[in-house]
Amino acid sequence: MPNPNNPALHSWIDIAPTSDFPIQNLPFGVFETPERGPRLGVAIGDYVLDLYAVSQFGFFEDLDIPTQPKVFRRRSLNSFIRLGRPVWRAVRLRVSELLRHDNGELRDNEEAMRTCLVRQSEVQMLRPVKPQNYTDFYSSIEHATNVGIMFRDPANALLPNWRHIPIGYHGRASSIVVSGTDIRRPNGQRKAPDAAAPSFGPSQQLDFELEVAFVVGKSTELGHSIPLQHAEEHIFGLVLFNDWSARDIQSWEYVPLGPFLGKSFGSSVSPWVVTLDALEPFRTAGPVQEPEPLLYLRQLDAHNFDINLEVGIQPADAPETTVCRSNFRYMYWSMAQQLTHQASNGCNLQVGDLYASGTISGHTPDSFGSMLELAWKGTKPLPLTDGSERKFIQDGDTVTIRGFAEKDGIRIGFGEVRGTVLPANPL
Amino acid sequence: MPNPNNPALHSWIDIAPTSDFPIQNLPFGVFETPERGPRLGVAIGDYVLDLYAVSQFGFFEDLDIPTQPKVFRRRSLNSFIRLGRPVWRAVRLRVSELLRHDNGELRDNEEAMRTCLVRQSEVQMLRPVKPQNYTDFYSSIEHATNVGIMFRDPANALLPNWRHIPIGYHGRASSIVVSGTDIRRPNGQRKAPDAAAPSFGPSQQLDFELEVAFVVGKSTELGHSIPLQHAEEHIFGLVLFNDWSARDIQSWEYVPLGPFLGKSFGSSVSPWVVTLDALEPFRTAGPVQEPEPLLYLRQLDAHNFDINLEVGIQPADAPETTVCRSNFRYMYWSMAQQLTHQASNGCNLQVGDLYASGTISGHTPDSFGSMLELAWKGTKPLPLTDGSERKFIQDGDTVTIRGFAEKDGIRIGFGEVRGTVLPANPL
Repeated sequence: MPNPNNPALHSWIDIAPTSDFPIQNLPFGVFETPERGPRLGVAIGDYVLDLYAVSQFGFFEDLDIPTQPKVFRRRSLNSFIRLGRPVWRAVRLRVSELLRHDNGELRDNEEAMRTCLVRQSEVQMLRPVKPQNYTDFYSSIEHATNVGIMFRDPANALLPNWRHIPIGYHGRASSIVVSGTDIRRPNGQRKAPDAAAPSFGPSQQLDFELEVAFVVGKSTELGHSIPLQHAEEHIFGLVLFNDWSARDIQSWEYVPLGPFLGKSFGSSVSPWVVTLDALEPFRTAGPVQEPEPLLYLRQLDAHNFDINLEVGIQPADAPETTVCRSNFRYMYWSMAQQLTHQASNGCNLQVGDLYASGTISGHTPDSFGSMLELAWKGTKPLPLTDGSERKFIQDGDTVTIRGFAEKDGIRIGFGEVRGTVLPANPL
Repeated sequence: MPNPNNPALHSWIDIAPTSDFPIQNLPFGVFETPERGPRLGVAIGDYVLDLYAVSQFGFFEDLDIPTQPKVFRRRSLNSFIRLGRPVWRAVRLRVSELLRHDNGELRDNEEAMRTCLVRQSEVQMLRPVKPQNYTDFYSSIEHATNVGIMFRDPANALLPNWRHIPIGYHGRASSIVVSGTDIRRPNGQRKAPDAAAPSFGPSQQLDFELEVAFVVGKSTELGHSIPLQHAEEHIFGLVLFNDWSARDIQSWEYVPLGPFLGKSFGSSVSPWVVTLDALEPFRTAGPVQEPEPLLYLRQLDAHNFDINLEVGIQPADAPETTVCRSNFRYMYWSMAQQLTHQASNGCNLQVGDLYASGTISGHTPDSFGSMLELAWKGTKPLPLTDGSERKFIQDGDTVTIRGFAEKDGIRIGFGEVRGTVLPANPL
């Protein structure tokens, strides 16, 4: 069977070497145009391959896809994902074949090619999955340590449970939006430590969080757990994730039951889901875990992934400044450990669940994944290239997270997740 | 317009005075039988009125219900609820009319009556809604105080934010199950305060939590908030809720991001959703709030409801012991305040969302709504009538929560939410 990750593959479509979407990637998403209703697509160079059209033209007729072409004409990937890994793999392989430089089936069929390929600049990307449940982990040791130093005790920055448990909490699924959706600054209740009483108004400490999230591809029944070595079979793919946070609301509300309204006003996801299959060449070992985790969380193989991440802040009418460069490989707890932990009590997974990593910070100050850390709780304002500085995110700022893996001259990119902050609603 | 809550109403169906389901109640649920696929129903005495059949027989033909009869043949109430309050009200009113002692339309049509009425003993009740999002509040001051005394400082039992914010957290929607579903004791990671290291195994501190939850009946857009005086317009109805909790897992994991796997192995709901309309006669003022809440949470009218609640524990092969009698009126924060707070940051509500009250404890030890409080962290084992005692819930125990409101000889009951605990899976 041909290997769709083979670095030697190239397409008859002209793809810039800097593109996030070479033939080795083929991420899945959902799009619409003024003429076409919501449907599934695959990114290739500057184009989207319309999977519904591809299916209608009969190019998938040798594949065993029970509900085609209908399954490709949906508002989310959920139904497609539910068909199972053999189907995702077969579709990705067939798309790879159709787009390969030496395959003329689509290239030489002018009507089909015109219908099946749409410029990305002409489509509206939609939220790729309907999230059934959303968990946000807290799996970067650098981030957890930074937060512990700032808010608790520098000498005991990590809490006693942190090295034993992939700490996480359930977040709000309803307010997850696709890249490009504006984010309204939340109003909320907050109380400065020296204030006599709390007050209600626009958050003064709006932040981003640089995260990566994975999409569940295989459900489990309530009462069942997942051995770690099978955890990745339940992962469809990955997206970039901005877990917008209102630090003032969060710090007043979060004791003792955790973050709530400081997070639930909006979380942004990138539109293209990069499959775990496409990321296979970038698998790498994670940090050494000390003490060794309990048996159910112990991993023998490499379960981290080498994905470069960066964050840019662009004020209204000014150029963007890159404020952070980090890497997904820094994660202390892997996705496999997170998922195994989530299901260890019998909690059932559902296709379309999103599991976010938590803020991904590196060792150096320029790799911190939130304004809270970059400006160190407001004590070290961050200079931007336009001469302004930031303690937190201001109205009109656009925050963009980008990510890509790169090896052997092949770049497997995620595109971006972008959001512009609008002023709070009047009280 | 006739008032379906009128205490003088009675039905041509014979209904025992102790029934939870007189003609003044008419709660909605979802059921199936070996012969009938999943469909919506209304409880009346010992019967279920099959709304799909009622619609097919044309009894709703004067009502403006866009998608009947199909909307009554679903696995959840969500689509019906989405039709909006005028439709729920019209259906409840029409059902009240059809069942009234002086109405012969259904009673005298033998074929219709045989088809539309099914004995409750012959149906399988299903989960009434597909929960889109689930929030668990912490709104009983007695419960929060008890927990604070046991786990923190008796002199400062309530945390500083508690009287200012209806504290809550996002829970797991996927593991919400209907009454009668067995609950598998979770395995999990826990560490006794005096243990050197954590271990993984069956929870030793399995608990119930006596709660009431409400179902959202009207969505909002992201970025929109809800003034308190309009909050109840977004509530369809109420169910009983058992928020099963593994105290040992919870206490080890919950700092700093809140409860996670200590809660997500299962939560049980009662099958009948009692409409807020049916509960209108039981509206009452809540406790005095001191200090006065911030303006956005200030309520001028009575937003609490007088609903008697009780919990029974039945060991395998032994009679049940009632271990708690409480009341929903004790809630410090009302449902209207909870919902207004939830949306105050612009978080969008979705039809089918569940918002649970948190454990509802009263002032006296026999009104505490969890084993944690009833046996005071294991220090005061609770005697059962079979001679055994309980610090926490044991394998084989069945926990049943019941609830009803009563006034002017009319009892508006919720039925029950019941669950039996199965032994943990082997490691």
